[in-house]
Formats: sequence, structure tokens, C-alpha cells
Amino acid sequence: MSTLVLGTVALDTVKTPHGRRKQMLGGSAAHFSMAARLFTRVNLVAIIGDDFPPQHIDFLRRKGIILDSLTKGNGKTFQWEGEYRGDLNTALTLDTRLGVLSEFNPIISQKQSRIKNIFLANVDPDVQRHLLKQMQSPALVGLDSMNYWINHKRNALLRLLKKVNIYVANEQEARSLSGEANLLKAAKYLKNCGPRMVLIKKGEHGVLFVSDKFIFAIPAYPVERVIDPTGAGDTFAGGFMGYLAKTGRINEYRLKRAILYGTIAASFNVEGFGLDRTGSLKMKDIENRIDKFRKYVLF
Amino acid sequence: MSTLVLGTVALDTVKTPHGRRKQMLGGSAAHFSMAARLFTRVNLVAIIGDDFPPQHIDFLRRKGIILDSLTKGNGKTFQWEGEYRGDLNTALTLDTRLGVLSEFNPIISQKQSRIKNIFLANVDPDVQRHLLKQMQSPALVGLDSMNYWINHKRNALLRLLKKVNIYVANEQEARSLSGEANLLKAAKYLKNCGPRMVLIKKGEHGVLFVSDKFIFAIPAYPVERVIDPTGAGDTFAGGFMGYLAKTGRINEYRLKRAILYGTIAASFNVEGFGLDRTGSLKMKDIENRIDKFRKYVLF
Repeated sequence: MSTLVLGTVALDTVKTPHGRRKQMLGGSAAHFSMAARLFTRVNLVAIIGDDFPPQHIDFLRRKGIILDSLTKGNGKTFQWEGEYRGDLNTALTLDTRLGVLSEFNPIISQKQSRIKNIFLANVDPDVQRHLLKQMQSPALVGLDSMNYWINHKRNALLRLLKKVNIYVANEQEARSLSGEANLLKAAKYLKNCGPRMVLIKKGEHGVLFVSDKFIFAIPAYPVERVIDPTGAGDTFAGGFMGYLAKTGRINEYRLKRAILYGTIAASFNVEGFGLDRTGSLKMKDIENRIDKFRKYVLF
Repeated sequence: MSTLVLGTVALDTVKTPHGRRKQMLGGSAAHFSMAARLFTRVNLVAIIGDDFPPQHIDFLRRKGIILDSLTKGNGKTFQWEGEYRGDLNTALTLDTRLGVLSEFNPIISQKQSRIKNIFLANVDPDVQRHLLKQMQSPALVGLDSMNYWINHKRNALLRLLKKVNIYVANEQEARSLSGEANLLKAAKYLKNCGPRMVLIKKGEHGVLFVSDKFIFAIPAYPVERVIDPTGAGDTFAGGFMGYLAKTGRINEYRLKRAILYGTIAASFNVEGFGLDRTGSLKMKDIENRIDKFRKYVLF
């Protein structure tokens, strides 16, 4: 089954204790796609500038990502520059240049509007809602956001929460939007805002999932050499949503499996700069690591 | 099998979003004992002052804790005052009054010196070493410490690490003592300092265990109403060491079970002030919660 992801395609400049890389291919939709492609046909909806390197387009196309709705705007591609220090859990944003992202108005094809699995990765909630309105029969809609929108477009985000099935947030976002310090309370609060399911990403500490039917928590796969955590959350979402699109069914067993696939996909993402590691990832790599992970976490 | 725990018996004054309690029975050895007593005969080695309320002694005795080496010094009982805000993960220490703790020189009986399972809960590393020297044939020695000793008696602590089998540390302590931000690297570094096993307690995020033979991670039991986290780490250690003392054998299966029991014991501790919840805890409560926990974490 196909999946449609709305988000950013960016040029990322990242500094970590392992080095600095300039203007790598990045962005929420790119990271999501690189994991989701292993499970499902990914339709990427994003905007790039007229400065966007053609080899990045070739790369995405070679990876099987459908780029029919990757629009080229007049101006510069969205750029993000960040640095990680210490425990690498939190990025310090050094510079953000929206460029063409400030005029992003996603338009999709008739065919794409019939896709049932949709992920609204981090962009302006108004843009997310605009895209969602074009979908004819959404069956599973996932939503991600970020602190900037929680602070600046809180009401738009809360309205959007009523329209989605699963809200994916990191710890800080979940606490900030809910006003609850306890993560279980935060997840329950957010679930009451609309989505049937809430998934809180805790970085190196794993994931907490809360639905009406069950609660589930797993640790992250322990990675010793974290090179660049940028996009780990989007990669998680890509593995999670990708698996659900592939299996086509949602129940407790499938959701737990989806969280497992997302967790493992994210563990590869942090082992390289940008898309270095996930770009070459094979399903077999994921399956092998799942076997190892079982020993880490099962008792 | 018996277990001997060295640590503090304190009068704790704690403020959390759920209220404030003055001069409750607390301390590392008291919290440890309250969980360990469900599995093993606990010999408590600590010092109290001449102001120590007799009802606390009665309480410990009623819980089956052996108090032969609970010494009464001339002066005040060790007092700690702390406050938790926000996510309740970190205590803000408002006041520490060592009292008789500053003259603590633990002496145990001949009979106690033959106990094989020993836990050196948080006190001065020199006091911990002094106690350990009195043990005739230690089989399993666990060690806990705190940032104060890492900063002020680093060398004494590092020497002690060579003499113990398992080092139990929280995230900050593990990072601080190892100089490694990555927890897996930190655990491996600390393992190279001497102990065969390292256990990193991550509060609401669970536990990471590293030995030569395997790595294991589990989340904490999700608790919605955290009343007072004081002593959760010691309660974890009590469940963990208590189970190992009871089973008498150490292998991968037993260690994972021990971590599970510690995790569940700690989840009860945070649900009440001081020893409110663990003081009345029954083995059946733990077993029931383990059944629920399985659903939370197994896939």
C-alpha cells in the first residue's frame, strides 16, 4: 500500500562531536521516506528551491521515492544548521533559513489524493491541514510537529489534532502541548485532544505509546557510536508508518511490531550523518538488528 | 539467603507537587530494606542519632529487618530535605545535616561478617570499604554512590569499584564518573574499572544493564501519579539484590528477572511518600504488577 508524506526537504548543516557536514540532504520528509521506502511506496510532498542540487533528486528517485509532488519554488531551499553537544539528545539550532518553505502550498495529484496512509511530518500546521483537506479517504493519518508550532500556532495544532489518528511527539513537545510533566498523563491528555493513539519519542530512552486499548513502552536500541541524531524521530515515524501501510491492518500486535520497526530504523539513522546510513539500509539489516534487540529487551 | 545492606537511615523532609512531609523515615538502607525484605533476610547496617523516633525502629523490626548493627550515635540523626518540581526526575537538595553520619564507623557481628550478599548503599566510600573489609567471604557485592562522592572522593570510589561485582549508578553519576556522555559507553567504561556488571538507573526511563555476557534494557513501569520519587533507586536495588539473594544463582535469566523485580518494586516506591507504599507491600502486589508490565513491554 502507498504512503503519502508531507514535510520538508532541506539542506542540513550539522556539527556533532564526530565532525561537521555542510548542506547535506535532510528534512523531515526525506528522513521519513528513507525508512518508509523499505515497507511501502512513498509519495513525497515537499518544496525545494531552485538551488537544490540535482544529485539529491537523483538519489531520492533511485531510492524509489515518488517525487511527483516535490515542487520547485523560486528561491532558496530550506536550510537548517544545528549542533549537538554532550549527550547528543538535544540539538542547538544555530540558523534556520526558510527560503521557499515560507510560500509552501502543497498541491497533489488526483491519484495521490486517494492514498489512505498519510504522514504529516513537521511543517506549519496550516500547511498540514491544507494537505489533509485534499485527501479523499484517509484511513490512517499520523501527525508530527515541533515546539515552534506549539508555541506559535497552538490553536491551529489543536484543531488539527482532532483530524488525525496518531500524534507523534517528542518528550518536550508532549509536555509543552499538554502542560503535564508526567509523560503518561501527557499522552492521555493529548489523546483526549483527538487522536486515538499518541506516541511519545524519548530519544535514547525509547518510546511510549498510549491508545484507548493498550499502553506500550520499549527502550531504544543501544547505540554506542551516535554520529548524528538529526532526523531520528522522522526515521522512527517512517519505519512505524511504513510497516503499518505494508501490513494494512491495525491491532495491538501490528502496532507493537510497527513501533519495533520504527525503533530499529531510527537506530541506524543516528549511526551516520544525514541519510548516510539509512540511504543504504536494507530490510535484512533491520531484521538482523531486530533479532539482537530481542535479546536486549525481552525477559 | 541473607543480605547485608550498609547505608543511611535518615529523617527525610520532602516537598513534591503532591504535598510536603516532615522528618519521615528514609535513607538509602531503609528504602533498600523495604524492597529486599520481600525476598531475603535483611541485615541493616547504619547509624541513627539519639533523637531517632522509637516508632521508626519498631516499624523496621515489624517488617522483619534485622537491626543488630543499627548503631545509635551521640547526636542527631542524618537529615535530608529536598524538593521535586516539574517532571520529578531530579531532586533539589534544600538542606543536608549529617549529624551522627559524620562519625559512622560500622561494626558488624561475627555472624553478619559471613553473609555473602552485600549491598553498599550510598555513604562515604571510605565507610563502604571499611565495611567490605570485615566481610569474610563476599559472593555478590553491589555498590551505589552519589555525585557528591564522585566529585569529592573520586579515587576512593574508583579503588572500591575494583572490589565489587556490580555497580549501580544513575544516569548523571554514570556520565560524571566515566566522562562519557553516551550511556552504553559510560557503562562499558565503568565495567572496565572493575565490576563485572554495571546497572544504570534512568528513573522514569528504566534501566540499562551491561555485563561481559549481555546487555539488557527495560523501561520503567509507567506510573501516572508519582507522589515522591525519593529512594526509588535504593528500592530498585533492594528488589534486584533481594531477588538474587533468594535465587542464589546468577545467570542471564536470573539477572533479567532481578532487574524486573527491582523495576516493579521501584514503581511502588514512587506512588507514596517515603516508605508509605513499600512499607505495606506484599509479594502478591509485585507479582500482579509484573503481569501488567509484561503487556506494557513485551511484543
